[in-house]
Amino acid sequence: MAAGPRLREFQLIEHLRRRFGRTGPSVVLGIGDDTAIIKPPPGRHLLLTTDLLVEDIHFTLSTATYEEIGYKAAVANLSDIAAMGGTPHALAVSIAIPRSVNEADVTRLYRGLMAACHPYGVSLVGGDTSASRHGLFLSVTLTGYVAPKRVLRRDGACIGDIVYVTGTLGDSLAGLQLLQKRPRNGISRRDIRYLIARHRRPTPRVQAGQFLVARGLATAAIDVSDGLSGDLVHLCEQSAVGVHIDASALPLSRACRAYAVATRTNPIQLALRGGEDYELLFTVPATRRDALERLRRQAGCRFTPIGVIRSKRFGMTLAIGRGDATPIRNTSYQHFSANG
Amino acid sequence: MAAGPRLREFQLIEHLRRRFGRTGPSVVLGIGDDTAIIKPPPGRHLLLTTDLLVEDIHFTLSTATYEEIGYKAAVANLSDIAAMGGTPHALAVSIAIPRSVNEADVTRLYRGLMAACHPYGVSLVGGDTSASRHGLFLSVTLTGYVAPKRVLRRDGACIGDIVYVTGTLGDSLAGLQLLQKRPRNGISRRDIRYLIARHRRPTPRVQAGQFLVARGLATAAIDVSDGLSGDLVHLCEQSAVGVHIDASALPLSRACRAYAVATRTNPIQLALRGGEDYELLFTVPATRRDALERLRRQAGCRFTPIGVIRSKRFGMTLAIGRGDATPIRNTSYQHFSANG
Repeated sequence: MAAGPRLREFQLIEHLRRRFGRTGPSVVLGIGDDTAIIKPPPGRHLLLTTDLLVEDIHFTLSTATYEEIGYKAAVANLSDIAAMGGTPHALAVSIAIPRSVNEADVTRLYRGLMAACHPYGVSLVGGDTSASRHGLFLSVTLTGYVAPKRVLRRDGACIGDIVYVTGTLGDSLAGLQLLQKRPRNGISRRDIRYLIARHRRPTPRVQAGQFLVARGLATAAIDVSDGLSGDLVHLCEQSAVGVHIDASALPLSRACRAYAVATRTNPIQLALRGGEDYELLFTVPATRRDALERLRRQAGCRFTPIGVIRSKRFGMTLAIGRGDATPIRNTSYQHFSANG
Repeated sequence: MAAGPRLREFQLIEHLRRRFGRTGPSVVLGIGDDTAIIKPPPGRHLLLTTDLLVEDIHFTLSTATYEEIGYKAAVANLSDIAAMGGTPHALAVSIAIPRSVNEADVTRLYRGLMAACHPYGVSLVGGDTSASRHGLFLSVTLTGYVAPKRVLRRDGACIGDIVYVTGTLGDSLAGLQLLQKRPRNGISRRDIRYLIARHRRPTPRVQAGQFLVARGLATAAIDVSDGLSGDLVHLCEQSAVGVHIDASALPLSRACRAYAVATRTNPIQLALRGGEDYELLFTVPATRRDALERLRRQAGCRFTPIGVIRSKRFGMTLAIGRGDATPIRNTSYQHFSANG
């Protein structure tokens, strides 16, 4: 991007405060003091999550716009709150800005952040800004609330629970591969647009998480941010259980199937490996399965049963229908092994 | 630093959780789930602050150890909570790690962070880790609590209030200049050690902030992180007032005076410009001055009156004793103008 007017820290903060800062009954004091002041709703627990986005690790300026970078940074955090069944509340954003990035670029990035937050009424309450001699670096912190007894943790899955996932898997990875200029022959324009949109503007499953909490249906949940295989490992390790997944049940969009056929990719691998789907992976007692199916319309997205929780001694396995079971390997993205 | 064993993200998080993670009655769930879960104390407001530390802007690996970088990152946040009169509570740390930094370095950095937090019982509850292809980036978020009616904001200073500052000013800048190898002739080893320690391990004025809140003595407060002149500007702008400062009253340590003499520096400029002192600048109604003087022993540090709040139309001025008043210019450090 072309270098623009030089940034001055205090002016930038004032600009961001005027443009994006909000106060209200639950945000007593936003940007501009030593800290933000928030009035927690009585009787709720506070949720706190933070995600980092680092240039040339999480994004490159050649394939992502500033708005997309901001949007996805917010979604990563919103999705964490969704996976607890919580209500997102207040956002703090820290940004280290290289010389090559001007004030208009920074404003675009914040516009993307706030666009993702807007449906949930999240307020920008603070943050920090700095110059950077190295790359663009973004750190986003989000608070939320949840009723203490209803929170969805990773460690509650029990033997016999049905494993569910929201939406469809693998779309984001297919979209990323399309952006990285894999051949597009044999895939319709509409499918390409859909997959790229799923990569660029994923939907955090806030409504689905709140639905599960309100109905007391799930025993454990995690969001699919690293990839299904990796996130299954996290959930099973924390719950001290094993799992068996039916690969033929993994929910795939029509576009993702078309992409897999055209590129001779195994769509199951796209679903297992692909990070950044931001779907929810959760477990439901077999006795609550009917209740879930009956009420699912309230959740705002589809739920698909993909497997069952088993004893830890059986490990984590995968089979296609009634075929042979093979161990699930964590093929998800790891920053340090893949990029460190 | 020598490159060490390659970092693997999940292993690093598990290591940090075991070594530094804490739960307790008020931290329901720490590192290891999608978010941390915190139980807010009833009837308190939540304080939220976040600070960014960027390699070659806020620190260089040639003059600071990893422990010092961690320590100062925590102090910047603790000082923000102190300036509100709050009680620090839970810490989330995000770090982007270049190849040249190994796991032992990262552990040292966290050790520094937790050493600064230890006196206040602050728990490490979460964060994020990433590789970095560029520099080392650190983003620290801290929550705290305060009684709603007692919080110290920047916008409460009134005409006639006395302006106070805790501790002494300019030490941190003198310490930094000594580290940057200014000639050390004519300064005792003890003074050098003192000034460098004040730069490397500043004390956040948490106890002083809580004292002011408990006694209801202050109308406004800010921490001196950018430098006295800049932070005075923030406080006066937010309170819509002017100020007159008596430069001869600025509290200087014996070591800072000795440094100023030896280096032919104006110690008043050190006090006005020097950032990272992490003292508190606060305003007290003239009618409460006697109460403050009487109770000051409870605050754990010295308080010095340095000026008086005036009407905004008189602007911000400085004089030495009864000498001529000159306007205060913001000579504090700004990231973008100085380094952008």
